[in-house]
Amino acid sequence: MKPPSIEGIVETILYAADLPRSVAFYREVLGLEPMTGDPARFQSFKAGPRQVLLLFKQGATLEPTPVPGGVIPPHDGSGPHHIGLAVTAEDNENWRTHLSSHGIVIESETRWPRGGRSLYFRDPDDHLIELVTPGIWPNY
Amino acid sequence: MKPPSIEGIVETILYAADLPRSVAFYREVLGLEPMTGDPARFQSFKAGPRQVLLLFKQGATLEPTPVPGGVIPPHDGSGPHHIGLAVTAEDNENWRTHLSSHGIVIESETRWPRGGRSLYFRDPDDHLIELVTPGIWPNY
Repeated sequence: MKPPSIEGIVETILYAADLPRSVAFYREVLGLEPMTGDPARFQSFKAGPRQVLLLFKQGATLEPTPVPGGVIPPHDGSGPHHIGLAVTAEDNENWRTHLSSHGIVIESETRWPRGGRSLYFRDPDDHLIELVTPGIWPNY
Repeated sequence: MKPPSIEGIVETILYAADLPRSVAFYREVLGLEPMTGDPARFQSFKAGPRQVLLLFKQGATLEPTPVPGGVIPPHDGSGPHHIGLAVTAEDNENWRTHLSSHGIVIESETRWPRGGRSLYFRDPDDHLIELVTPGIWPNY
């Protein structure tokens, strides 16, 4: 049987040792718009038209989480994990300036064979954040 | 200074203890289309119009990875991590049938206040996979 279709990735998750510290980073440094959250457990951010970046407090979801309408099974993680965020080619240089103004060190830069460029730096948990311009994957 | 814009999440990553085992799961059970890969290090899958699911072999990226055009800094992770994949409301029941035909046990189901539904199950590394229909987040 052919599987039904997967339409996209809705929820991309990172675990954070200090939730307020990470919330500040993703809001102020990366400019993501906070949506719903619970200071003891998680914060969600709008990360694209139908995409959510979720920060969970490390160790807070090792037990099932009751929610209205059901239960979220246990999950957790430790890093240094990695995510890649889309930026326009025009903004590559603006990001370099912006990150520098926040004292963020760019750990590496790559120029991909198809023309895309990546900037790599760390979030407060040492997660590896990549800002990617188009021209790296067959579908981006 | 206002941050430049983040357009979306391009790369969502999971770490796998046994890469071929996980590649088979994501291709055959979830039906994701494999793109580029390297058996010793990673496999990429098309997961949406401009979205990539990346499986990295756990422990294989603890050192910087030289690539044409630069170097990818170290990253790694251990779980049980969590991701959420978009499916249509019409396919919720089809997924239940499909997962059952592969012997996958649905660990939990939730019905969200705004009407969205989630099915939760595990991948071969015990990562928590959620199939989500629209009506859960402000932007989905």
